[in-house]
Amino acid sequence: MPSNKCVIFKKIPDGFPMIGEHIELVTRDIDIENFPLADGDIIIKNQYLSLDPYMRSRMRDPQIESYVNAFKLGQVLEGHGIGTVVKSNNKKYQVGDHYHGLIGWEEYTHIPKNAVSGDEDLEKEISKSKLPKSHFLGLLGMPGFTGYIGLNKIGKPKKGETIFISAASGAVGQVVGQIAKIKGLRVIGTAGDDSKIKYLVNELKFDGAFNYKTCNTDEELSKLCPNGIDIYFDNVGGETLDIVLGHLNNNARVVACGMISQYNTKNPYGVKNLMYVVTKRLLIQGFIVLDHYHEMEPFQKEMREWLKQGKLKYKEDIVEGIQNAPDAFLNILTGKNFGKAVIKIC
Amino acid sequence: MPSNKCVIFKKIPDGFPMIGEHIELVTRDIDIENFPLADGDIIIKNQYLSLDPYMRSRMRDPQIESYVNAFKLGQVLEGHGIGTVVKSNNKKYQVGDHYHGLIGWEEYTHIPKNAVSGDEDLEKEISKSKLPKSHFLGLLGMPGFTGYIGLNKIGKPKKGETIFISAASGAVGQVVGQIAKIKGLRVIGTAGDDSKIKYLVNELKFDGAFNYKTCNTDEELSKLCPNGIDIYFDNVGGETLDIVLGHLNNNARVVACGMISQYNTKNPYGVKNLMYVVTKRLLIQGFIVLDHYHEMEPFQKEMREWLKQGKLKYKEDIVEGIQNAPDAFLNILTGKNFGKAVIKIC
Ligand SMILES: NC(=O)c1ccc[n+]([C@@H]2O[C@H](COP(=O)([O-])OP(=O)(O)OC[C@H]3O[C@@H](n4cnc5c(N)ncnc54)[C@H](OP(=O)(O)O)[C@@H]3O)[C@@H](O)[C@H]2O)c1
Ligand SMILES: NC(=O)c1ccc[n+]([C@@H]2O[C@H](COP(=O)([O-])OP(=O)(O)OC[C@H]3O[C@@H](n4cnc5c(N)ncnc54)[C@H](OP(=O)(O)O)[C@@H]3O)[C@@H](O)[C@H]2O)c1
Repeated sequence: MPSNKCVIFKKIPDGFPMIGEHIELVTRDIDIENFPLADGDIIIKNQYLSLDPYMRSRMRDPQIESYVNAFKLGQVLEGHGIGTVVKSNNKKYQVGDHYHGLIGWEEYTHIPKNAVSGDEDLEKEISKSKLPKSHFLGLLGMPGFTGYIGLNKIGKPKKGETIFISAASGAVGQVVGQIAKIKGLRVIGTAGDDSKIKYLVNELKFDGAFNYKTCNTDEELSKLCPNGIDIYFDNVGGETLDIVLGHLNNNARVVACGMISQYNTKNPYGVKNLMYVVTKRLLIQGFIVLDHYHEMEPFQKEMREWLKQGKLKYKEDIVEGIQNAPDAFLNILTGKNFGKAVIKIC
Repeated sequence: MPSNKCVIFKKIPDGFPMIGEHIELVTRDIDIENFPLADGDIIIKNQYLSLDPYMRSRMRDPQIESYVNAFKLGQVLEGHGIGTVVKSNNKKYQVGDHYHGLIGWEEYTHIPKNAVSGDEDLEKEISKSKLPKSHFLGLLGMPGFTGYIGLNKIGKPKKGETIFISAASGAVGQVVGQIAKIKGLRVIGTAGDDSKIKYLVNELKFDGAFNYKTCNTDEELSKLCPNGIDIYFDNVGGETLDIVLGHLNNNARVVACGMISQYNTKNPYGVKNLMYVVTKRLLIQGFIVLDHYHEMEPFQKEMREWLKQGKLKYKEDIVEGIQNAPDAFLNILTGKNFGKAVIKIC
């Protein structure tokens, strides 16, 4: 009988989650052969699990409403993943088929009928594609679509404009920067590590980038964006947002995608420069990618086209073994990941 | 030879402007009879001067760029006003005609040709209209249009939605609240005085209002907006904005019209609740009414129609005598005005 290592949600963290205290690896057994599958259920052997910052916001008191349900205490954490069907009582899935959807942070996931959410076309593509399967969790998955929709719908990029991107080497940021380059913008990014900065400039051909941990953001923006910023793709919020407000041009757009600098504190940073919103006629708009899944088609088409044309690169930070998921997740919250964080489970 | 009392800009204030130190009343002479008018110039005897919060932002270091020029040190302050032409070397204006445009904070203003900016149709209407002339500086002027355009273009009000308005009894706020009522919204307001609150509820028929100086804004919003807020028309910024963010519904709009609570401090309030911008998919958008003057027509039509139908009231705070303009202006910045602040010069 195979064992099933899994990561469970143990306690709601106030600040940074601690391994052992808030999230914990446990080993359970799973008797696949004798598992009683109800009509429509499947069991997946998980291959890839996407780790994403929003998971931190699911580690909250369920009383607090938000755009995504809180994780349940004592239960296995969830995330987007790719796996192979190993047992099926569902007409749509044969053993051996690929599955792409919500899975547990575990080796095997039993998915009850009403939670089976896979997209058949995508799963067929995953089976056939020469691309790394993990790309379907990043560049061509949720984070890629996040960058695409946020940039296009809120950022409304125009050739010749300047865009600034925080967490620029991350899962979302890389996509935003490359699409912005394709569209003819001047692209400036920031990240918290010199190797990330090199990647942005040398590989992704950003027009400029700096390490916000070792440089002065205000000074760097003055140097790198002498004509101001037209679009700020904000992945971090907090002090960076505050400083950027001072560098925005009239009628600039702030794509409020995420505020990761604020996810692990009960005492958020107070943003002081909001008066610019009035005087510079700024737009600051938030969005949740889930709301836009019905408008995925142009994304899927354009991204595949750009990939074919060799116009897109994608750096992934792939960690092997579900037992390493807790550490890898914490790395996202401290900036130690470099590229899209993915767990290769098997 | 008539004397010309005027208010000059003496020194750039750091905080609240002080009368005598930063703005000062002086009396000059003006020899209208022998005044050498260049071609196209006119002299206006000023009747009404509009006092507005944005004037505070003109009292700044001219090195700091903004949407409106800084006042010049040593020169007479400016504002929107209405007057009568007393001398003219301009074919468009006869002595006795009304003038509506930028004037000085003074009894007589010499307007050189290139600054003559009056709108003939409006000036004819002012001459004929039975409405108080001051209404053309408020309800039907810049502040009224500010409320109209901000509410409609950014707020995008829909019947049945809830709007919350700060500085609700002011020049802009009254207009926003009444248009929102006409459009079928639930309208809640705040202001800093009990008499203002009575006016909002009893006269303007707001669905609820509270005095933010004596009540707890967070608690009042929970009580008065049990289903949350869909539009926040923000005239004050700062702490009120921070608290309101917690009460906004998904996809709510914040019309960033002004942040008067921050105009007299070098140490702005830090807004902590911006994470809601992402999780609730909020839109926060600023605007400057000047950018929209080319789209004034629907405003002019609708407002006059609503006025005819008796659907609009407008409270003005009219102070007599240009010598009282400095005090009246300070009253706006401390909330002692009640309604649109106007100086009746003669
Ligand atoms: N709105 C949506 O629907 C949606 C969807 C997906 C993602 N998001 C948001 O998009 C943002 C990026 O997500 P991602 O998947 O692309 O993650 P990621 O960039 O791959 O990983 C997170 C990165 O954030 C940076 N970071 C961590 N802590 C930080 C701090 N205190 N201050 C500044 N930066 C910090 C780190 O990079 P550095 O080295 O640059 O510090 C870290 O590598 C997140 O805020 C996420 O919540 C939103
Ligand atoms: N974006 C644009 O183009 C544009 C155009 C016109 C006006 N505005 C802005 O719209 C806002 C309202 O202007 P208005 O002409 O209608 O002025 P107003 O409301 O007639 O007068 C200003 C009012 O603001 C309130 N206030 C003053 N100090 C305050 C503080 N520290 N905290 C909270 N409230 C304070 C006071 O009322 P309370 O008794 O309620 O405290 C005061 O009566 C201002 O922020 C102004 O700058 C913007």
